[in-house]
Amino acid sequence: MPGSVFGQEFRITTFGESHGGAVGVIIEGVTPGMELSEKLIQKDMDRRRPGQSDVSTPRQESDMIHIMSGVFHGKTTGTPLMMMVQNRDARPISYDKIKDIFRPGHADFAYERKYGYRDYRGGGRSSGRETAARVAAGAVAKMILKQENIKITAYVKRGAGIECENIDFDEIEKNIVRAADAEAAKKIIEKIVAARTEGNSVGGIVECVVSGVPAGLGEPVFDKLDADIAKAIISLGAVKGIEFGAGFAAADMTGKENNDEITSAGFLSNNAGGITGGISTGQDIIFRIAVKPTPSISLSQKTIDTNGNDAECQTFGRHDPCIFARIVPVVEAMTAIVLADHLKRQKALLV
Amino acid sequence: MPGSVFGQEFRITTFGESHGGAVGVIIEGVTPGMELSEKLIQKDMDRRRPGQSDVSTPRQESDMIHIMSGVFHGKTTGTPLMMMVQNRDARPISYDKIKDIFRPGHADFAYERKYGYRDYRGGGRSSGRETAARVAAGAVAKMILKQENIKITAYVKRGAGIECENIDFDEIEKNIVRAADAEAAKKIIEKIVAARTEGNSVGGIVECVVSGVPAGLGEPVFDKLDADIAKAIISLGAVKGIEFGAGFAAADMTGKENNDEITSAGFLSNNAGGITGGISTGQDIIFRIAVKPTPSISLSQKTIDTNGNDAECQTFGRHDPCIFARIVPVVEAMTAIVLADHLKRQKALLV
Amino acid sequence: MPGSVFGQEFRITTFGESHGGAVGVIIEGVTPGMELSEKLIQKDMDRRRPGQSDVSTPRQESDMIHIMSGVFHGKTTGTPLMMMVQNRDARPISYDKIKDIFRPGHADFAYERKYGYRDYRGGGRSSGRETAARVAAGAVAKMILKQENIKITAYVKRGAGIECENIDFDEIEKNIVRAADAEAAKKIIEKIVAARTEGNSVGGIVECVVSGVPAGLGEPVFDKLDADIAKAIISLGAVKGIEFGAGFAAADMTGKENNDEITSAGFLSNNAGGITGGISTGQDIIFRIAVKPTPSISLSQKTIDTNGNDAECQTFGRHDPCIFARIVPVVEAMTAIVLADHLKRQKALLV
Amino acid sequence: MPGSVFGQEFRITTFGESHGGAVGVIIEGVTPGMELSEKLIQKDMDRRRPGQSDVSTPRQESDMIHIMSGVFHGKTTGTPLMMMVQNRDARPISYDKIKDIFRPGHADFAYERKYGYRDYRGGGRSSGRETAARVAAGAVAKMILKQENIKITAYVKRGAGIECENIDFDEIEKNIVRAADAEAAKKIIEKIVAARTEGNSVGGIVECVVSGVPAGLGEPVFDKLDADIAKAIISLGAVKGIEFGAGFAAADMTGKENNDEITSAGFLSNNAGGITGGISTGQDIIFRIAVKPTPSISLSQKTIDTNGNDAECQTFGRHDPCIFARIVPVVEAMTAIVLADHLKRQKALLV
Repeated sequence: MPGSVFGQEFRITTFGESHGGAVGVIIEGVTPGMELSEKLIQKDMDRRRPGQSDVSTPRQESDMIHIMSGVFHGKTTGTPLMMMVQNRDARPISYDKIKDIFRPGHADFAYERKYGYRDYRGGGRSSGRETAARVAAGAVAKMILKQENIKITAYVKRGAGIECENIDFDEIEKNIVRAADAEAAKKIIEKIVAARTEGNSVGGIVECVVSGVPAGLGEPVFDKLDADIAKAIISLGAVKGIEFGAGFAAADMTGKENNDEITSAGFLSNNAGGITGGISTGQDIIFRIAVKPTPSISLSQKTIDTNGNDAECQTFGRHDPCIFARIVPVVEAMTAIVLADHLKRQKALLV
Repeated sequence: MPGSVFGQEFRITTFGESHGGAVGVIIEGVTPGMELSEKLIQKDMDRRRPGQSDVSTPRQESDMIHIMSGVFHGKTTGTPLMMMVQNRDARPISYDKIKDIFRPGHADFAYERKYGYRDYRGGGRSSGRETAARVAAGAVAKMILKQENIKITAYVKRGAGIECENIDFDEIEKNIVRAADAEAAKKIIEKIVAARTEGNSVGGIVECVVSGVPAGLGEPVFDKLDADIAKAIISLGAVKGIEFGAGFAAADMTGKENNDEITSAGFLSNNAGGITGGISTGQDIIFRIAVKPTPSISLSQKTIDTNGNDAECQTFGRHDPCIFARIVPVVEAMTAIVLADHLKRQKALLV
Repeated sequence: MPGSVFGQEFRITTFGESHGGAVGVIIEGVTPGMELSEKLIQKDMDRRRPGQSDVSTPRQESDMIHIMSGVFHGKTTGTPLMMMVQNRDARPISYDKIKDIFRPGHADFAYERKYGYRDYRGGGRSSGRETAARVAAGAVAKMILKQENIKITAYVKRGAGIECENIDFDEIEKNIVRAADAEAAKKIIEKIVAARTEGNSVGGIVECVVSGVPAGLGEPVFDKLDADIAKAIISLGAVKGIEFGAGFAAADMTGKENNDEITSAGFLSNNAGGITGGISTGQDIIFRIAVKPTPSISLSQKTIDTNGNDAECQTFGRHDPCIFARIVPVVEAMTAIVLADHLKRQKALLV
Repeated sequence: MPGSVFGQEFRITTFGESHGGAVGVIIEGVTPGMELSEKLIQKDMDRRRPGQSDVSTPRQESDMIHIMSGVFHGKTTGTPLMMMVQNRDARPISYDKIKDIFRPGHADFAYERKYGYRDYRGGGRSSGRETAARVAAGAVAKMILKQENIKITAYVKRGAGIECENIDFDEIEKNIVRAADAEAAKKIIEKIVAARTEGNSVGGIVECVVSGVPAGLGEPVFDKLDADIAKAIISLGAVKGIEFGAGFAAADMTGKENNDEITSAGFLSNNAGGITGGISTGQDIIFRIAVKPTPSISLSQKTIDTNGNDAECQTFGRHDPCIFARIVPVVEAMTAIVLADHLKRQKALLV
């Protein structure tokens, strides 16, 4: 099977390239009768869109969302909800330089090998622009979760080597890198600016906390809740790793240290990250992801052209000096989609 | 949808609990006409089975595989291949102590909340015994991969805090912990024995390297090759994290450092772990996973009973002091299943 | 994807050939906490099994069902329920005559072309024996439907050219052909005996009525309730057609004649067969299917051998002179599986 | 799972209502590198669109197709292909009369029961307008089939009680009802005009013949080729039955009469309709479907309003007096989608 469908009972199918007509999504399984408007969706779209701040690409896209089906008189009908964003700031001419070479760190080479033919403009389907569709779908998923008081908060935990020491959710949207620590945010921004100045880019770590998840979500033995979150998150182009709860640190622990003891007042720790046996326990779900530095840099790099000959790559143009800041709403969106799906699946089981 | 089906074109459905009649798997999409015997499957089963060494549970199960369908006169027919292993060393009486309490670090609590009713013997469906079915399926997947010269090697990279410094594939099956470094293996075993003596357990890190993968496998934007591997691996009960290539270290790199430059002679590095944009590049696929310490320990722990009252948990009985050694063939199996599936999916795309 | 998985939230995966080790099914999505025993399943198995009467094959199979997982202390756990029936009365020697030829009306030729290799004993996977797994799964689905007061009744409407004029549900299980009319049953049996005597076989029509279905089941625009029933039923080897409500007769009607008018007291007719727009209306669901005559006959027929040379086929052996009588419980089973699935899917939608 | 996804390797997801912003489809699994333009798709769109002739609704929709993704420089990229048609001739005001009543023969009542909230304009998602997306997807599927010399021809076999006695494929597109017999066509048109004049409508039978299908397509035991075609076709709102080959007539045959004998020169008959055991045999695939009369008629009918009170329904407005003529390209489209999917699935099996 091809791979642009995700989820089961809350199911999304996405389409669109960086420079085609539009990017968008069909969502199925939307609970009927919910209030929904383009305005409600746009809020999350604006958190992801390019050009929103100094540390994101200057590409100008308003990312205006259009609802094309599934809503009638301001309410969801339960039938497929199609939303899309038209591509406007497309400048195909600027891609002539790179149409015959493979940019290091990008998917150009792999796409060529897979499909034998590719839309080289802005990476085509492999562009981060594809995530606009995910964010739109996530906004709908969040509405379903809100009815159950489930709340998802993602933020930058570490950026350009700077760690957020004091996590404060109120700080996240107050700084342009979405770091959960005001002091760290300043230093991270400095590092990003420095990297951009020299034509380079930086990576970071994003953490996500989900509160209010009822115990019992997740479908062993393959569609476990953590397995589905891992797939959802690793499917984001820039993510190179994910860990739940204690994560890689658990590898150095003993069973006595790692086990979360339970008392009548609740769990005494959360090394499991809110999931055991692939099923939510009712504790907060916590995971962290490694976000690689933006592959598009203007420093010179070795590469080959489409004929296999040695070449040089220097991608001028409009690029984000980091991905971790703009990926935050996308991480929330993918998490919301997984949770909405599993909420519905659990209802189906208990019929 | 329930969650015991995995894969698309090479698709497995598993069943079985720790102490029910049997655990097993139906495999669909088996290429017809391949030579297959129980003996060929048994080899991998023996690498996973309990009681194989000093650092595994003394539970005695021969894990003898039985082929029930899909093979005729020693060759696969292309129709569903069912294989199963009967449960023999079941001692239900030994579970009376824990039937009314939730063992910390186990899925007991989450299963109770999800299903409202559970088979408490040995963890029921959440038992690691379920992975016997995965290993059997993986052995079949490996036969398909072998035809394409794809080879999967997993090993312990770090155990009980001891790192393997010199990776040597030839060492892996020569020591009982499957460490890729003979020196490290000795120290790891010492640590395990010490932990077991005090009724405790230890965790570790397993690394997996896949060579010979053709470029072009993976189905963007959700069924990316790394996303599907991540799901497959995180669906293993003891795994708390996964990272590809440079992994979490990439978060602290710059784009210039992290990008894998390309020359006419090949890639100059492999920070991507053999996958870009979710598609294999032809380089080795490399990933590492965090394996938590066995939750079953005999040290006393706080817990609650099924009525929510405070209780004490002390799980005597036959348990592995570490999971990382026995999980190695399971990691290979899940990786093989994902790759066989994606090989077939790529053929379907290019019709 | 291969094709031995059916359903979404109530999902079955089947395996097994006519003469392999066993035929069976893994069922997922079984509501946890339901009472379930082999005895309850066996009842439906006995209605399908060979050797049950004068008009079925004398092949002796007790078709004893074994539950291998998913049930604990007499109740379903919600985890995969595996059930199987071992093949006992296998006489491979009797298939030597037909291993090199393709029996007309059978799937031999098509299987050879598809897989390039086949288990010729009794048709292998294409054998009607495969339906034992469906009946076992259907028995579980019926338990879920029973909780909602949904009742499925299938019966022979026409056999060997004889029509049941007065449908009486009480007659169905009183005669060995499961005709819903005692008078017709006698004549049908006479016709069958006559056909068998001359080495021939006969076909018929089975009707199925489902009462108690709540309005609202079915998932437009592809997984409509009638579309899913059609797929489920046409997937039975001997079925060559299906029609809902007025069916083919609707083709000759006008809109005024065919439309089912509605009053505050209910619908005035049921030409739709209980489904409009692919969604149940709350009326009885009614459909009819065409069951072809058994292809195994002992009269001589022209065929070719596996080398493509002309040959003669005369299949002696133990065969049913009609399929329509034994297919009745299978039709009920497949209908039950579709309905249990859609009940669960509707719950998921309305979260 | 919701139901607007169809197919596996050639997979479509559709959206859109009669009077929303647009109807359209995302197609995945499109073979990369094929030439594709809106012009090529438009040809089939025009065969389905309203207002094309005297016997179709006068609703004016140009049904201009727009490709939004998946095509670059006139060739398919292998990534999701999104196509849509905007709704233009929407006159919501004309639906005020029927917003509070359920039209007999329509899905209004069932949709209300299922979703609890509905877009009543033109039937919303249950409108035949939804099939525009299917036809667009079918046009792409046909391109894949063309490469394999597979040809699909559907036509009216019987309309308003008039049978086509002499099937001539060349006649089909020469008459506005797509009857395969010029003489019959004239009579059918007369009958339609008479029905329309009195505010009534008529039904018919469509036959479909597929030539050039290689032997071996179809995935037992559930995704059999005939089972998947049956689902695809019954998922069309107006279809009440389907039969393959001899179909319902086989119910009255003996095995000797029904079996298709084989000789070294080929099959001697085609009662199976080109499929045995759910797998194509290489013979023509033949099936017939029952198309009900258009439910929208202007004659008065009894119904209830949304409060359950008795009411009268008289649907003035722009309606087709028959569905069978315009459904012909839709039947071809759904058949093409199933075959393209199974072609790809067979390639995956044989890796």
